[in-house]
Amino acid sequence: MTKEMIANTPKPPYYAVIFTNLRTSIDEGYEETAELMVKLAKTQEGYLGHESAREGMGITVSYWESLEAIQKWKVQTAHQIAQERGKSKWYQSFKTRICLVEKDYGFEKI
Amino acid sequence: MTKEMIANTPKPPYYAVIFTNLRTSIDEGYEETAELMVKLAKTQEGYLGHESAREGMGITVSYWESLEAIQKWKVQTAHQIAQERGKSKWYQSFKTRICLVEKDYGFEKI
Repeated sequence: MTKEMIANTPKPPYYAVIFTNLRTSIDEGYEETAELMVKLAKTQEGYLGHESAREGMGITVSYWESLEAIQKWKVQTAHQIAQERGKSKWYQSFKTRICLVEKDYGFEKI
Repeated sequence: MTKEMIANTPKPPYYAVIFTNLRTSIDEGYEETAELMVKLAKTQEGYLGHESAREGMGITVSYWESLEAIQKWKVQTAHQIAQERGKSKWYQSFKTRICLVEKDYGFEKI
């Protein structure tokens, strides 16, 4: 799983889903499922990219063309199973925030 | 610096600033400045909380009451100096995204 790239998103407006979480100590199936969800998300209509880091707290931000694309990903069958397992096994707590990205700017060292 | 808490934000709408970055190998002054910026941000009007993790890529999300509060923090004097040092020393690249949080939901294991 590549975690090292800043997502190459288009000019705003677009949407972001900020998923902040704390894990339990149960690792069983977690890494495989996380990798599968990344693969699946990339095939979803309206997916624009994602960024992820964990340092105790995990933060994953995924970017989407529209609220409809986010909703379709939320109810995608394999993703729903993963969400249920997340609640029963892997996550102690989480917060999901659905956001409209209104403006962005970047910097890159030459 | 406490990195372990999911921010206790109010009912939407509110704003999020997603700051995604890749560091250079220059550490001089970085940790002290990061800690000072967190302390200062907490004293800013309209600050609602923040979440941060680094795993190669760094992701810091700060939450704010309004665009005006974000703008005031952006031009705060010590923060401006830190931003300049960030570009000249600590960051290889970054992207800042200003977002309106429209909806959120959470989960906490009992």
